Amino acid sequence: MFYHKKQLQYFTPPAKPDAAYAKKLQELIGGSFGEMTVMMQYLFQGWNCRGPAKYRDMLLDIGTEEIGHVEMLATMVAHLLDKAPVNMQEDGAKDPVVGAVMGGVRPRDVIMAAAMNPQHATVSGGGAMPADSVGFPWNGRFIVASGNLLADFRSNLHAESQGLLQAVRLYEMTDDPGVRDMLSFNIARDTMHQNQWLAAIEDLKSEGFEETVVPKIAYEYGKKENAYQFWNHSEGEESAQGRWAKGASIDGKGQFEYVANPQPIGPEPNLPQPDPKLHGTMK
Amino acid sequence: MFYHKKQLQYFTPPAKPDAAYAKKLQELIGGSFGEMTVMMQYLFQGWNCRGPAKYRDMLLDIGTEEIGHVEMLATMVAHLLDKAPVNMQEDGAKDPVVGAVMGGVRPRDVIMAAAMNPQHATVSGGGAMPADSVGFPWNGRFIVASGNLLADFRSNLHAESQGLLQAVRLYEMTDDPGVRDMLSFNIARDTMHQNQWLAAIEDLKSEGFEETVVPKIAYEYGKKENAYQFWNHSEGEESAQGRWAKGASIDGKGQFEYVANPQPIGPEPNLPQPDPKLHGTMK
Amino acid sequence: MFYHKKQLQYFTPPAKPDAAYAKKLQELIGGSFGEMTVMMQYLFQGWNCRGPAKYRDMLLDIGTEEIGHVEMLATMVAHLLDKAPVNMQEDGAKDPVVGAVMGGVRPRDVIMAAAMNPQHATVSGGGAMPADSVGFPWNGRFIVASGNLLADFRSNLHAESQGLLQAVRLYEMTDDPGVRDMLSFNIARDTMHQNQWLAAIEDLKSEGFEETVVPKIAYEYGKKENAYQFWNHSEGEESAQGRWAKGASIDGKGQFEYVANPQPIGPEPNLPQPDPKLHGTMK
Amino acid sequence: MFYHKKQLQYFTPPAKPDAAYAKKLQELIGGSFGEMTVMMQYLFQGWNCRGPAKYRDMLLDIGTEEIGHVEMLATMVAHLLDKAPVNMQEDGAKDPVVGAVMGGVRPRDVIMAAAMNPQHATVSGGGAMPADSVGFPWNGRFIVASGNLLADFRSNLHAESQGLLQAVRLYEMTDDPGVRDMLSFNIARDTMHQNQWLAAIEDLKSEGFEETVVPKIAYEYGKKENAYQFWNHSEGEESAQGRWAKGASIDGKGQFEYVANPQPIGPEPNLPQPDPKLHGTMK
Amino acid sequence: MFYHKKQLQYFTPPAKPDAAYAKKLQELIGGSFGEMTVMMQYLFQGWNCRGPAKYRDMLLDIGTEEIGHVEMLATMVAHLLDKAPVNMQEDGAKDPVVGAVMGGVRPRDVIMAAAMNPQHATVSGGGAMPADSVGFPWNGRFIVASGNLLADFRSNLHAESQGLLQAVRLYEMTDDPGVRDMLSFNIARDTMHQNQWLAAIEDLKSEGFEETVVPKIAYEYGKKENAYQFWNHSEGEESAQGRWAKGASIDGKGQFEYVANPQPIGPEPNLPQPDPKLHGTMK
Amino acid sequence: MFYHKKQLQYFTPPAKPDAAYAKKLQELIGGSFGEMTVMMQYLFQGWNCRGPAKYRDMLLDIGTEEIGHVEMLATMVAHLLDKAPVNMQEDGAKDPVVGAVMGGVRPRDVIMAAAMNPQHATVSGGGAMPADSVGFPWNGRFIVASGNLLADFRSNLHAESQGLLQAVRLYEMTDDPGVRDMLSFNIARDTMHQNQWLAAIEDLKSEGFEETVVPKIAYEYGKKENAYQFWNHSEGEESAQGRWAKGASIDGKGQFEYVANPQPIGPEPNLPQPDPKLHGTMK
Ligand SMILES: [Ca+2]
Ligand SMILES: [Ca+2]
Ligand SMILES: [Ca+2]
Ligand SMILES: [Ca+2]
Ligand SMILES: [Ca+2]
Ligand SMILES: [Ca+2]
Repeated sequence: MFYHKKQLQYFTPPAKPDAAYAKKLQELIGGSFGEMTVMMQYLFQGWNCRGPAKYRDMLLDIGTEEIGHVEMLATMVAHLLDKAPVNMQEDGAKDPVVGAVMGGVRPRDVIMAAAMNPQHATVSGGGAMPADSVGFPWNGRFIVASGNLLADFRSNLHAESQGLLQAVRLYEMTDDPGVRDMLSFNIARDTMHQNQWLAAIEDLKSEGFEETVVPKIAYEYGKKENAYQFWNHSEGEESAQGRWAKGASIDGKGQFEYVANPQPIGPEPNLPQPDPKLHGTMK
Repeated sequence: MFYHKKQLQYFTPPAKPDAAYAKKLQELIGGSFGEMTVMMQYLFQGWNCRGPAKYRDMLLDIGTEEIGHVEMLATMVAHLLDKAPVNMQEDGAKDPVVGAVMGGVRPRDVIMAAAMNPQHATVSGGGAMPADSVGFPWNGRFIVASGNLLADFRSNLHAESQGLLQAVRLYEMTDDPGVRDMLSFNIARDTMHQNQWLAAIEDLKSEGFEETVVPKIAYEYGKKENAYQFWNHSEGEESAQGRWAKGASIDGKGQFEYVANPQPIGPEPNLPQPDPKLHGTMK
Repeated sequence: MFYHKKQLQYFTPPAKPDAAYAKKLQELIGGSFGEMTVMMQYLFQGWNCRGPAKYRDMLLDIGTEEIGHVEMLATMVAHLLDKAPVNMQEDGAKDPVVGAVMGGVRPRDVIMAAAMNPQHATVSGGGAMPADSVGFPWNGRFIVASGNLLADFRSNLHAESQGLLQAVRLYEMTDDPGVRDMLSFNIARDTMHQNQWLAAIEDLKSEGFEETVVPKIAYEYGKKENAYQFWNHSEGEESAQGRWAKGASIDGKGQFEYVANPQPIGPEPNLPQPDPKLHGTMK
Repeated sequence: MFYHKKQLQYFTPPAKPDAAYAKKLQELIGGSFGEMTVMMQYLFQGWNCRGPAKYRDMLLDIGTEEIGHVEMLATMVAHLLDKAPVNMQEDGAKDPVVGAVMGGVRPRDVIMAAAMNPQHATVSGGGAMPADSVGFPWNGRFIVASGNLLADFRSNLHAESQGLLQAVRLYEMTDDPGVRDMLSFNIARDTMHQNQWLAAIEDLKSEGFEETVVPKIAYEYGKKENAYQFWNHSEGEESAQGRWAKGASIDGKGQFEYVANPQPIGPEPNLPQPDPKLHGTMK
Repeated sequence: MFYHKKQLQYFTPPAKPDAAYAKKLQELIGGSFGEMTVMMQYLFQGWNCRGPAKYRDMLLDIGTEEIGHVEMLATMVAHLLDKAPVNMQEDGAKDPVVGAVMGGVRPRDVIMAAAMNPQHATVSGGGAMPADSVGFPWNGRFIVASGNLLADFRSNLHAESQGLLQAVRLYEMTDDPGVRDMLSFNIARDTMHQNQWLAAIEDLKSEGFEETVVPKIAYEYGKKENAYQFWNHSEGEESAQGRWAKGASIDGKGQFEYVANPQPIGPEPNLPQPDPKLHGTMK
Repeated sequence: MFYHKKQLQYFTPPAKPDAAYAKKLQELIGGSFGEMTVMMQYLFQGWNCRGPAKYRDMLLDIGTEEIGHVEMLATMVAHLLDKAPVNMQEDGAKDPVVGAVMGGVRPRDVIMAAAMNPQHATVSGGGAMPADSVGFPWNGRFIVASGNLLADFRSNLHAESQGLLQAVRLYEMTDDPGVRDMLSFNIARDTMHQNQWLAAIEDLKSEGFEETVVPKIAYEYGKKENAYQFWNHSEGEESAQGRWAKGASIDGKGQFEYVANPQPIGPEPNLPQPDPKLHGTMK
């Protein structure tokens, strides 16, 4: 069960509105690696967790923190949308260059209206939306909760890596001191969260998980002769220069092998003829 | 530019058709972590790669291999769909138990028709589809190619971890020797690919990438006092028992700190009043 | 900022697992009117709210409660998925009727495997998913937060009406006493929430909102002669019997009028010829 | 069965083309609350209606009218897209300010090309699309037809409320007299349709439906002690000031109660351990 | 503007309900090539049509007919959903084989509940949905209206071909005389519509359209030396045996040429180094 | 199984970067008729093909070529995104007209940032994405592989027609000599592929396929009296002027008939009353 405090985890208002930046910032709310993704991913992983209590608690702690991150960013978007150009008919043909050709409106409004997400005016009335920077809605396929903590923590590490990278890029894309101050908090938390998943993976290993996901079962079921081969599917062998092409495999169970000129092992496909009731084309 | 050989990389036909299993197996073709995902993810990462040649070549090698994995699985689905119950009117009320209440058709057909994906008959005419096991279509938001190889290789590691886990689960869900033999090859390749991304991450580090994504810039931009704190957003402190709650951070730049009773740092939100032209509700 | 308590708002475990029902119950988690929808809808409406404090607080209170409803249902789904038939090769051809034709497995497993969502095994490993009962993912277009509280409270009333209806239908679709006990709590909360939105609409009206959304501006901009007409677009006049066809309009600004034989007011379309550079077909 | 007349229900051509506005206007065609939504929602509700004939007829009347609204808006979009900047290579660096830095094209074209939906040129060749103002396609999850008329009429009331609000916002966002004249008709019809659903809800009540959806069954199944409580999930009690917090419930069956400091009623979750075949993490 | 008549274009009720078939039949309503697709495709093509009046009129005639096809199929689905197993607790463990293991319910209900779309009970209350046979919603990307009539008529021909094929497959999948009688009408109309688009393409040609889309402009802009080559991207030359590999091209402007061993004409990619502000991986 | 060569099939780098055009060009990568569509469509048709070897080989040849087309376009997008305005804080208020009102940044950057896809900076770091020109992701419902080659080749012909049309439109929308040179190759290949599908359809016919899809079975199952009628669903008879309204049907099996004033053949719908457990509205 959940509770709310009215203060934001961290916040500084922007120095000035910027509807075009509000559109871009939506990526951190509803994008593939936005705060809705990490919020939902950690909550579902926590709710579904059947492993030791410390992992479940940790997942729900961070998932709960992330709800507050959506809240911070939604608040920022609302501030940035203040004074967005939602009214085109005023102000006349004052500008001698752009205004004239646009039919008599202020150039700032014309350009800002071109740059902003129109739904920020028409649909949300100046509020944030559960969508990314091109307006594509967040959806449940963005997250994973598999029940296997090593597989999932790798997903989490990856999501925080992409999210941090995007936050840094967005930090560069503005010089508004308020936005930058808030993003500096987000970047700090993403830094922690990257470290946190690396630490959690360390913990899993120290408690008996191996370097890879389901190694024993993969070893039992997998075709061993193909389990450590790199297949060179192209002309040229630049790919032979990597760690993946020689030496002991990372899981310590085999030797990497570079197959320079790989050939198919399987036969040509030979599909059964279709049921005539399907009216497919037959031989 | 790409070329094709008619033989499959690996293949064993199933011992018998099984349309219900064909539906489940679609997860490995068009699911979030299916072969279409890794194929497209590695190809786009390769095409967009501006880093050293060995990475680009390696990405395109493995991406090219994965096209062949979609091919193998599509071929398997076509075999499994052979003799699917696409014709309900024959055979009459022969079965005394189930048949009678179903209006006179064979129980195997009734149950199999309940279990199979109807589009495998109606839409694809007995062929594989670019969709997952509930029929949801593969889509481009399943993949990522950010231009930052560490962030992307973590995504790849995660995708192969989930994919391998799913392949193992599907292996358990059948006892068909042909399907199991083919999946044992897939499991072996997934094992290699897990190892490969771990190795590739090792390479990135040995060549100057640090443990975390954009650490220097995150350090410069990020609010340092919050960069290594774990916030306990719940009653109870089970989450204090993890590696993430104490000791040096994994990136070596700070000390983990456990904030047992975290309080907001920010103010209550104070949104600007909306433009009257938007007809939102005002204070 | 948000906090978590480990206990569930309400919960009774199911008397027995039922993977087929778990699939159906997903509708209340990730369906158009499931708990994810009301949770996200109320939170975004609260975060974007620029109206009086009592509405904002109320929206965030109920939105926060709804996070806990997702938690309850996710927990129920995990219980229901216990002992799901994820392993088909055991137990042999014990059943003389169904087992034989299915290739030697227990009929309960065959039927349950046909009925369950395969992703509940393969993807989530026995956990709930952010998707509906056919596996379609929850997405951000399911919610609305327009900035106009009357419009949005009507959406909320509607969502709770549909959600309650679905909960009642699902209550009928099981006889498991644990599931029914938990759903009786959900039904009670949905009952409150229906009443709550009706009450909140009353409040808006008593504070100056009118019966309809933006009536003054609609009156100013709208073509008055068409603002209270019912157009009968079909043969037969059954539709003349409703309240909408005669008497004072509900907003008190006009009289309903029944147009029995409506004719177009506009001209035939006369599109400009296309730019030749578009290579469209011209007259 | 349906018939068509060639004249539009209402129409005035725009005074001048405006491809940027055409993009915004798509919201009223293919957005969540656009004309495709109300058209499809009313038609499906009508087709599925098993209630009294007057409701079925009325639903199909208004659904049929809405097809013509899509037609009107599609025609408007085609007019607005006339002379869209689909050809960038002409006219050279005539403009001393913007043109120079853009590489020699007319500033109006550059800005308009930035603002327009590129698919309006490339994909539709100057025609309307079944998508919203960010290009996201209309989809079937936008509508509801539950078989329960009170629940559905609330949905209809809500859809017309949001649609009217958006039409008014779009009216403000242009000063083109043709567009405004057409929108004044749409605003009038939306006004009628808001009133119509309010009237239809009145009718349902006068014919025996109660204030809320399935009240008898909810009363029978629902946990009565929780059916009229407002739970305050946050610090601070602004939410106690609303109608929903005290007095008789709107359905007249209970008294609203404000739970100022709510505590969980349920236990901590205690999930069963996963099937080992799923390779999830166990305790 | 549109009108409705209450009778269906054609209809025969099913002899008996069949919720499992109702799920399958949804493909013809909301699938990629269902009636919603052809309805919307022809209407949008008609509304956007700037060519001769006979094409515009014909497109709107057939689009208007297709609305009635959705109506027929929706009516059929409602009939088929009659007596669907929405109530599981009755009837007890009467069946000695299946009932026992399912916990005491009628086997027909268990199997039918496994086979039906759960949303047909929970969401639509026994009505049709704007979705396909796996519950995926119809969406606007299923249709095309490009402004070029030859390109679009080919799309129409293709849609009717797939739709007819699916209708025939679904005809085989039932033996209900009512369903078959209605489908025989749909199959007849699809037959007409296939012929209609073939005839319309003939008309376009007789009025000056050539065999291919934009041939003059393609000839002017296209690299002529590659415009009639078949590239053999695989080992083996079975593909040399087709009409596409030799002889005059169909457009009469060139000679087909079989390139047995094709080699790249382009260089290796040489991407510019990324902007350092993007923190991508550099060489 | 597949192989890669590092050279591109064809390529010329753009003369200068143009992030706005990169956004538009995405249509040819991930749009409904982009290269991902034809690549996936031909590969799935090939993998599912159970007809003569020459068709299967041909499908896989062209599908394999199309992978290389995605590669060419992805490379072009990366070049066009070079020097995209990802950094807004530099350069100050140098421009007297636009810069001043925008808060002190270069007008080119402001306009280009308004025009570009923000994900090209934030998400892909300057690389191509598997999405169309409005950022909507490519998805599996864009393709078809039905098992019936005539139906599918018509789909292919249609896809190449639309794709060529879009390529020609995009050719007009730039004057960059590099982009135009590459597109001239794409246009040539699309020309070939249009001819190829026309030729393949010729081959199917010469080998026994008839003019239409499943004509024998449609003739057997279809209601013959409705199989060649054109129904005029509107006032006015412009649609009587087409080839589809008179003369022998294209399949040679009937005579086109123009039904000028069509009337319903079916009854009014008469739906069964709903199961009370569904709580739908009854008569
Ligand atoms: Ca975060
Ligand atoms: Ca693979
Ligand atoms: Ca709830
Ligand atoms: Ca309307
Ligand atoms: Ca039809
Ligand atoms: Ca191509």
